[in-house]
Amino acid sequence: MPVSWYYSGRAVRFTDKLLSASRQNRSLLCIGLDPDPELMPVADVLEFNKSIIEATGDLVCAYKPNLAFYEALGTGGPGILEQTIKHIPGDIPVIGDAKRGDIGNTAKAYAKALFSVYGFDAATVSPYLGADSVEPFTDYRDKGVFILCRTSNPGARDFQDLRTDGLPLYEVVAQRAAEWNAHDNVGLVVGATYPEQLGRVRSICPDMCLLIPGIGAQGGDLPAAVGYGVDARGEKAIINVSRQVLYASRGKDYASTARKAAERIRDQINDCRERAL
Amino acid sequence: MPVSWYYSGRAVRFTDKLLSASRQNRSLLCIGLDPDPELMPVADVLEFNKSIIEATGDLVCAYKPNLAFYEALGTGGPGILEQTIKHIPGDIPVIGDAKRGDIGNTAKAYAKALFSVYGFDAATVSPYLGADSVEPFTDYRDKGVFILCRTSNPGARDFQDLRTDGLPLYEVVAQRAAEWNAHDNVGLVVGATYPEQLGRVRSICPDMCLLIPGIGAQGGDLPAAVGYGVDARGEKAIINVSRQVLYASRGKDYASTARKAAERIRDQINDCRERAL
Repeated sequence: MPVSWYYSGRAVRFTDKLLSASRQNRSLLCIGLDPDPELMPVADVLEFNKSIIEATGDLVCAYKPNLAFYEALGTGGPGILEQTIKHIPGDIPVIGDAKRGDIGNTAKAYAKALFSVYGFDAATVSPYLGADSVEPFTDYRDKGVFILCRTSNPGARDFQDLRTDGLPLYEVVAQRAAEWNAHDNVGLVVGATYPEQLGRVRSICPDMCLLIPGIGAQGGDLPAAVGYGVDARGEKAIINVSRQVLYASRGKDYASTARKAAERIRDQINDCRERAL
Repeated sequence: MPVSWYYSGRAVRFTDKLLSASRQNRSLLCIGLDPDPELMPVADVLEFNKSIIEATGDLVCAYKPNLAFYEALGTGGPGILEQTIKHIPGDIPVIGDAKRGDIGNTAKAYAKALFSVYGFDAATVSPYLGADSVEPFTDYRDKGVFILCRTSNPGARDFQDLRTDGLPLYEVVAQRAAEWNAHDNVGLVVGATYPEQLGRVRSICPDMCLLIPGIGAQGGDLPAAVGYGVDARGEKAIINVSRQVLYASRGKDYASTARKAAERIRDQINDCRERAL
């Protein structure tokens, strides 16, 4: 059954779309489309993105553009992002990595921008402002909402690990996220650089999708990330890689080299997955 | 001495620019330029913003566009935001309310977008990802960086009030923000809807600028917000109002009515300020 059958003519829930693409491409790999002018081998961002997408579309479960890199391009950036999203095959979910978080009224405008204007299938949001900052996103029931939980950076320790009533803050966030999951469309962002914490989050939220950055340039441990990240069926973990694929080659062969890098990582993930089950 | 003298030909530090505009206009009022198509009396967002700016430019200490409302306009939104910023007199600081928060590499791209592309004088950022998510912003020494501390919405309670080692999280954030203030360009966002918490933050950070939303539509208590928010000299509190000014009239007289509303609030703030000193 072609994946495209699945969503023709009606809204598809994010998790269904993700699992469908993931099974079709036998992949938990998500490529972060983060064009950095200082690292790109070509000057044209849209050309670069299109080449990467064309070279890797059958190897991924999702793509994840981080909006920062498009905003940094100037007022033309959003147009490039829009064209990039349009170039992604319709059966591959696209996660808008925006980490937005604002009060209800404003969160509604952000959710509209990400889901209605750009048409992302999912978005990342920050938990700091609490329930009414997340709800305008989860109200889009067909869209996925990934709440920042334990991030992959060194500064994650500053607040996310603080103990509140015996639990680190990120575990409280995971518990709340599970409570806020009334429409079954909430996931969490947990960095691969902290496998132990990833395991804790997976045990708090056994059925939720986890978006896991931090492999590659950030030095996360792939076997541990996969082993702790997947659900009981070996699914619902989205392993994001950006720079390690996008900039695998800085020469003219960048697209074919990106494909080789993506294929290698996808296969490594699948090896880890088999060992984990 | 005209305010414009102050910054001709060289970079002006945010706090100096703020104090200069605040003294010149005898105002702690900041107008949030948050164009909402459902509430605006005219269809053209740029025309609306320009009219509001022209009607209130001598009554405010700052303007604060929230990026969500521009992103929700579609890919043309950033161009409208850029034109809006250009229309603001050069001696009035402009705060980009973006609440960004991402890992170092990506935070750098966001800081570039806000400070170099748009040219904001200051920006709001989220603390959840810790020191390395804030540092790329504070590295712009002439720019102001307002860290979310105790926000004005009901969901603020969910995480910001959790006790960690006896202190609520927002107080830990205030303490860290003070530590991160090596370049004297860090401020905090504290909602007017929680005056007691505002007082706590002011006592932790007696000299930092506080950005205080929550007056007006959100129901914050103005005398308490001013009394607890200002520093020992009755300054460095930025009282933001959006809807109460922008949509004071939904008719053709919206600009002149916005001016009257802004003037009334500015004067109320000044009355409160005199009583507080």
